[in-house]
Amino acid sequence: MTPELIDRFASLVGPGQALSAPGDIEPFIVEHRDLYRGVTPLVLRPGTVAEVSAILRLAHETGTAIVPQGGNTGLVGGQIPHAGEIVLSLSRLNAIRAVDPEGDTITVEAGCILDQVHRAAEAVDRLFPLSLGAEGSCQIGGNLSTNAGGTAVLAYGNARDLVLGLEVVLADGRVWNGLRALRKDNTGYSLKDLFIGAEGTLGVITAAVLKLFPRPRAQATALAGVADPAAALGLFRIARAKAGGQLTACELIPRIGIDFVLRHSAGSRDPLAEPHPWYVLIELSSPLEDADLDALMQAILEHALEAGIVADAAVAASIDQARDFWGLRLKMSEVQRAEGGSIKNDVSVPVARVPDLIARGIAAAEAIVPGIRPVPFGHLGDGNIHFNFSQPPGADRAGFLAQWGPVTDAIDAIVLDLGGSISAEHGIGHLKRHLMERIKPPVELELMRTLKAALDPKGILNPGKVV
Amino acid sequence: MTPELIDRFASLVGPGQALSAPGDIEPFIVEHRDLYRGVTPLVLRPGTVAEVSAILRLAHETGTAIVPQGGNTGLVGGQIPHAGEIVLSLSRLNAIRAVDPEGDTITVEAGCILDQVHRAAEAVDRLFPLSLGAEGSCQIGGNLSTNAGGTAVLAYGNARDLVLGLEVVLADGRVWNGLRALRKDNTGYSLKDLFIGAEGTLGVITAAVLKLFPRPRAQATALAGVADPAAALGLFRIARAKAGGQLTACELIPRIGIDFVLRHSAGSRDPLAEPHPWYVLIELSSPLEDADLDALMQAILEHALEAGIVADAAVAASIDQARDFWGLRLKMSEVQRAEGGSIKNDVSVPVARVPDLIARGIAAAEAIVPGIRPVPFGHLGDGNIHFNFSQPPGADRAGFLAQWGPVTDAIDAIVLDLGGSISAEHGIGHLKRHLMERIKPPVELELMRTLKAALDPKGILNPGKVV
Repeated sequence: MTPELIDRFASLVGPGQALSAPGDIEPFIVEHRDLYRGVTPLVLRPGTVAEVSAILRLAHETGTAIVPQGGNTGLVGGQIPHAGEIVLSLSRLNAIRAVDPEGDTITVEAGCILDQVHRAAEAVDRLFPLSLGAEGSCQIGGNLSTNAGGTAVLAYGNARDLVLGLEVVLADGRVWNGLRALRKDNTGYSLKDLFIGAEGTLGVITAAVLKLFPRPRAQATALAGVADPAAALGLFRIARAKAGGQLTACELIPRIGIDFVLRHSAGSRDPLAEPHPWYVLIELSSPLEDADLDALMQAILEHALEAGIVADAAVAASIDQARDFWGLRLKMSEVQRAEGGSIKNDVSVPVARVPDLIARGIAAAEAIVPGIRPVPFGHLGDGNIHFNFSQPPGADRAGFLAQWGPVTDAIDAIVLDLGGSISAEHGIGHLKRHLMERIKPPVELELMRTLKAALDPKGILNPGKVV
Repeated sequence: MTPELIDRFASLVGPGQALSAPGDIEPFIVEHRDLYRGVTPLVLRPGTVAEVSAILRLAHETGTAIVPQGGNTGLVGGQIPHAGEIVLSLSRLNAIRAVDPEGDTITVEAGCILDQVHRAAEAVDRLFPLSLGAEGSCQIGGNLSTNAGGTAVLAYGNARDLVLGLEVVLADGRVWNGLRALRKDNTGYSLKDLFIGAEGTLGVITAAVLKLFPRPRAQATALAGVADPAAALGLFRIARAKAGGQLTACELIPRIGIDFVLRHSAGSRDPLAEPHPWYVLIELSSPLEDADLDALMQAILEHALEAGIVADAAVAASIDQARDFWGLRLKMSEVQRAEGGSIKNDVSVPVARVPDLIARGIAAAEAIVPGIRPVPFGHLGDGNIHFNFSQPPGADRAGFLAQWGPVTDAIDAIVLDLGGSISAEHGIGHLKRHLMERIKPPVELELMRTLKAALDPKGILNPGKVV
C-alpha cells in the first residue's frame, strides 16, 4: 500500500480517526488471548455510515483489503488483519437509533456494546436476550456477523433469530437499507440472513433492528446431580416436555469442573450433599410475576427422581443461591486456566447424540494423551459442548499444548461422524478455515464461493476468512 | 420446445410420470381460485432426487424453463407455468425420511402434505406447529419455498424458523445436501435461508430437517370485545407481557366479520352478550398438563378490564367453545364469498402501527369506493392484517372487482408509508412482481438480481417470479 493510498483512506474519516502509530493500533491487532498478532498500516474509525461507504468504495476501486472489526473479542481470529489489511473499526458507530417498546424492537448501530443494548432494553422494561461472556466489550455488529450464541439460545435462539432488519455497506460501498421492523415480510430473498454469520466477508453490517422480549419476572434455578450424560439428556427432555418455552437454560457440568471451582474460586462450595459424576443446571423463566416456577421445577425434578434419572437436586432458595449455581457453570473456562494448559473446541451434535459425543471424545483423547483430563461442559439443550481438556497434573504445559491439533482433530472426526458441527457458536474465521474442505461437501463450498464472488468480486472483504 | 426435447425430458422420469394430455395436466395449470390458467407442454413427476437432478441438468444444458410445484395452493401464482414452462411436480417425493423424537427433529421430503407432517409428529408425541388453511393439501416444499406463515407464527415463527437443514437441487442439477439436524452450526454462510422463501427461483427444495416441539397439553382460549384496534393492541401487549411464550395466538376480528359468520354459517352464535366493534381472540398454550392457563387468562383479562381496554370477554369453558371462537376467525374468508365480490390484500406493518394502518386504509378505500365494506382481520400479534373489503350491498360485483387495483394500491401506499410489507405471508410470485420496483430500494433489487444471476445464470428456475 503506497503512502498516497494510505493518505486517501485516512482523509475519508474525521481528524484523529485514522490510526497508524504502533501504540494506537496495538489494541486492534492483538487478539485478547494472544493467539494472534496482526499487522496493519492503518486503523480507520469512521463516525458515519457515509464514511464506511466511502472507505469501501475506495477499497473496491483500488482492490484494497479490509478487515471489519467490532469489540475484538472473536475467538477464531476473524477480526484480526493477518496479512496487512486495513482495519475498519465500527466502534464509533455506537448510537441507539430508536427504541420501540410498543413494537418490541430496538434499532442499534453496529458499534454498540452488547451490554449497552441490554441496558437500553431494560430502560423500557424489555429484554434483549443475547447473553455471552464478552458482553461488556463485544459489539452487536460483531455478534451479528458471527451469529453469536451464548446461554439464552435454548429459549430465544442465536443472534440470527433476534434480527428483524439490517443496514449493510456492500463491498463496493453501496448501502443497503434493510432496516425493517416487521415480524412478517415475504417480499423476496432473505438478504439479512446472508450477512448474519458471514463474518464480514460479504458486507459490513452498520446497523440492525433487533427483537425485544418481555422481561422475566419470575425465575427458578436448580442444580441436579446425575450419573452420566445420558441421564443429563433424560433430565433435559423431561424439563423441555414440562416447561416448553419456559425452560430458558439447560447446562451440563462435569464433576471435575466443580472440583476445579472448589479448588480455585474463593468462597465456592459443593452444591449438593454428595458429589455426583455430572451436574445439570436448569433455569425456568416467566414474564408473569406470580408464575409458580418453583412448583414447576419441583414437578420436573420429582419426575426425574422417580424415573431414576436424577440422584439428588437442589432448587435455589434465593437469587444469591441461583447466582452461585450459575457461577459454577460460568467459571468453567476461568478455573481451567489454574490447572495448566487446556485444549479447547466448540462443537455441536444433534441433541440426542451428546452422550455419544462425550463418551467417544473422552476415549479418543485419552488414547492420544494418557492422563488427559476431559472437562466437557456447555449448552446441553442446544447440543453444544465446549469440549475442553486440561493437561495431566504435573505434565509439561507446552508439550501438552502441542497435542492441540491431534486432540481437536480426533474430536472433530467424531463430531462429523455424528452429523455435528466443528464450530457451534464461534465461527470459522482464520482458526478453522483450513478445515472447510474437510467438513463441507464440495457443492456447499462451491455455493459459498459463488456467493462470495458475486457479492465481493474483488475479494477485499476480510480475505482469508471463512471461504 | 421441440418434440425431441420433450421426449428427452419425459425419458428422465418413470413410466406414466410425464404428463402431457390436456386432462392430465389440468390440475397442475389451474390456480384453485381460478385467478390463473397456465400453459405447459409437460408435467414431470419425478420419484427420486436423482430424477429431479437429471431434469434440472437437462434444463440447464438446454436453457429450458422449469416451474417447481408443490400442492398448487399458492396465492400469488408462483406455482403456475404462465409462459409454457415445464412443470416439475414434487408430489411423489413424499417420504418421511426420519423422525427423531429424542432430537426433536423430523426429516421430510418436499412432497409431504403438511398434515402428513403434523401426523408424523403427533405419532411421536410432538408438535410441528406450522398451521394454515391449506394444510390438508399444501406440501412442505411449497411451504418452505414461500416461507409460509399461518396462525402459529406468534409463538413458533414462520416456516423459516422451523427449518434446521435442507436438501436442494441447484439450477444446474447439482444436489446440495444440507440436511443437518443441528441447533447451532456456525460454519459459513446460511445457505438454507437463501432457498427458503425464494419461491423456487434459486433452487428446488427436495427435503428438509424440521424442528419439533413439545405438544401443548393445556390451552385456554378467550374472545374479548374491544372498542377499536388501539384497544386490541393494548390487550395484545398485556397478554404478551403476562404470558410471554405461552401466548400462542392473538387474532383480530371486526364486528362485520362476526355479522357475516352469523348470517352465513349455520349454527354459529354471537359470542358475547352485546355486540362490540372489534374482537380479539387470545390463545394460551402450555406443554404442562396442569398449567393453570385459565387463571393466567383471567389475570390478563382482568388487567385489561380494569384498564378500560376490554369491554367484555368470555373464556372458553370447553374445547367445543374454544373451537367455536376459532371458527369465527377461520371463517372470515369463506363468509366473505357469500357477501359478493371481495378485494384482498395480505400486508404487515410494525405491530404498533396496526391501528394506524386500519384507520387510514379504511378511509382510503371508502374514498375510492363509497359504501365499500372493510373486513380487516388477522394476525394482530404479528402486525399481519388480511386487509379485505366486501363490495357495497347490491353493487355490481364485476364493477367492484374492477377497483381491485386502485384499492390495493391505496392500501399498499399506506403500508409502505408505515414501514410495512405488501406481502406478509403469501409471497411475491407472479401477482405482486410488478410492485417490486415500487417497494424495494434499488440496491435491494440489485442484490436480489445478483443472487439470481449467480445461482441460476440461465434464468431457468421459475422465470418471471419474484425478481
